[in-house]
Amino acid sequence: MAPSVAAGNVDVMSRLQSVCGTSGPASVAARLADLVDLVQWDLEKVEAGIDSFPNPERLVEKASVHILDLGGKRLRPTCVVLAARMGNGFSQTVQDFATSVELVHCATLLHDDVVDLGETRRGAEAARMIYGNAASVFAGDWLLVEALQRVLRTGVGEAMKRLLEILDEMILAESLQLEARGDFTPNRQRYFSIVEGKTAALFRWAMFAGALGGGCSNEDANALETYGLHLGIAFQLIDDLLDFVGNAEETGKALFTDLREGKMTYPLIAAAEKDNSIVEDLRQIIENGNAADSQQLLTKLNEIGVFEETKALANEHADFAINALSSFGDSRAKNALRTVAEATVSRDK
Amino acid sequence: MAPSVAAGNVDVMSRLQSVCGTSGPASVAARLADLVDLVQWDLEKVEAGIDSFPNPERLVEKASVHILDLGGKRLRPTCVVLAARMGNGFSQTVQDFATSVELVHCATLLHDDVVDLGETRRGAEAARMIYGNAASVFAGDWLLVEALQRVLRTGVGEAMKRLLEILDEMILAESLQLEARGDFTPNRQRYFSIVEGKTAALFRWAMFAGALGGGCSNEDANALETYGLHLGIAFQLIDDLLDFVGNAEETGKALFTDLREGKMTYPLIAAAEKDNSIVEDLRQIIENGNAADSQQLLTKLNEIGVFEETKALANEHADFAINALSSFGDSRAKNALRTVAEATVSRDK
Repeated sequence: MAPSVAAGNVDVMSRLQSVCGTSGPASVAARLADLVDLVQWDLEKVEAGIDSFPNPERLVEKASVHILDLGGKRLRPTCVVLAARMGNGFSQTVQDFATSVELVHCATLLHDDVVDLGETRRGAEAARMIYGNAASVFAGDWLLVEALQRVLRTGVGEAMKRLLEILDEMILAESLQLEARGDFTPNRQRYFSIVEGKTAALFRWAMFAGALGGGCSNEDANALETYGLHLGIAFQLIDDLLDFVGNAEETGKALFTDLREGKMTYPLIAAAEKDNSIVEDLRQIIENGNAADSQQLLTKLNEIGVFEETKALANEHADFAINALSSFGDSRAKNALRTVAEATVSRDK
Repeated sequence: MAPSVAAGNVDVMSRLQSVCGTSGPASVAARLADLVDLVQWDLEKVEAGIDSFPNPERLVEKASVHILDLGGKRLRPTCVVLAARMGNGFSQTVQDFATSVELVHCATLLHDDVVDLGETRRGAEAARMIYGNAASVFAGDWLLVEALQRVLRTGVGEAMKRLLEILDEMILAESLQLEARGDFTPNRQRYFSIVEGKTAALFRWAMFAGALGGGCSNEDANALETYGLHLGIAFQLIDDLLDFVGNAEETGKALFTDLREGKMTYPLIAAAEKDNSIVEDLRQIIENGNAADSQQLLTKLNEIGVFEETKALANEHADFAINALSSFGDSRAKNALRTVAEATVSRDK
């Protein structure tokens, strides 16, 4: 995995562009250069931490390196690094937190792919398709333990305690999602419980741990964690949207994947609330697996206007995230966090 | 799960009898009463900790409670409690360690059953047969996090650090076993690497953590950990043996399960070293799945005398375990640990 570090500037730039989208407002694109300039060195260090399994021997190491090597947006490590820069900035502790959050994220992806029988991930074959389900289960376990070891060695007890609490929330949310699978009754409360647990919780920890690593006060760490909560919700809403209107080549994920897995994403909830016949349409699509039906649904959802509604709600949460920073004075890091929030909702992959 | 606690005396007695076997030497059976008397109160407390999920709601909680509720031998918590009694004895910290070691053990069983497609566990349906593979993967994750939270809250940093190291060893050993699956070349070194990681490592932690919880010196904790290492190896050797000569109703596990899963257990290694034609027999059995072939193998193994050899090696490790305690003065706890080691190798389930 050395090349990603060697590529340096270009690599970090392309990853952050990936985070920030290329179709967003011009003002977001313009601020991207400053963001890259600010965090490039930090993220290269983080990448070196993620790339620290140079000679994978065991099957679990190979499966782990496979997913780590596929790159991804590295949005969670970026959050850690920026939260730290709201305080004293980068350090070994911050690097360990940033590396760990990506390892935890990849651990959940490995287990999710086994659970959802996912065949592709980040535009490539899922680890379980190459190394098998068994190796993917153990590789997820292994990455989780690797992450916990890194967090523990920082000696920041509160970060360890919170990570375990967050993992608890994440797993219970995955469980709730599993139970809700195939139930197309629109249920906002359940939807947000799932999203807050499975997605926003880890963004919260990224911001919280980054803040502690940067020596922020408790009050500041709480504010930054609130940013993470809303960024995570906004991120998931856009993910939901891209399941219908994304470009599979760009996102690395086939359209209607969530739908086929029986997941009630936000556009579907909003649509079913307005037109209950959608619920029956969804059952039909799942039962018949007819591509034409999916296209028809897409047209219907478009007509009802739920894509705009989803985007608007994502924008609202991006605003909540930015507003959570109001007590901080102006700084490059604060501007960068604003860029991340705005770019997250304008991303197309 | 209240009944197991309410049943009190009877329950702990039957669990420990289960540990200690009923077919062992009379002297072992006689010492059992003293062992029960010594740890009964401690283990009831531990059981209350394990039973602390009274109203499982989420699917992962239900799958977790299912396996915890099946009981099992509780041998690892017994080790924690006895190690603590080699020092100052029971405390909240010791209870948390003892509960945690059982939660970790059950987490590994949940993941193992998904990996091995196991259908029964502890004589009942495996959790994955009732709640599905997905729920079992997440339930394993959840139990692991629950265990880590309990260990962290004790504030004994060294126990947490060692548990993560031990988990790392366990997962890498599972990975090695996965790679070795279906390879019937006799390889002692690989066999012991797998056994030390997948089985003995958690016994080591049980003894080490119990010792710390009981305020033992580092030197004493190391000696007790050595006991755990050898107890774990002895335990696995007997497990290997019971795959051939056990009573399925007693063990809760069908005969030849390890064999069918392509695992090269100790009796097979010992046999193949003496008679290389066994390797071909094993390939045939796996390919044809013929029960008569398995019976024929059993006869052959019996003739070669590998069951006695396996038992003898298990006895040797039980002796190593007991000898590891030689620097301790006589005590009821030391006698109880001797009883546990001797009973582990004379157990029939």
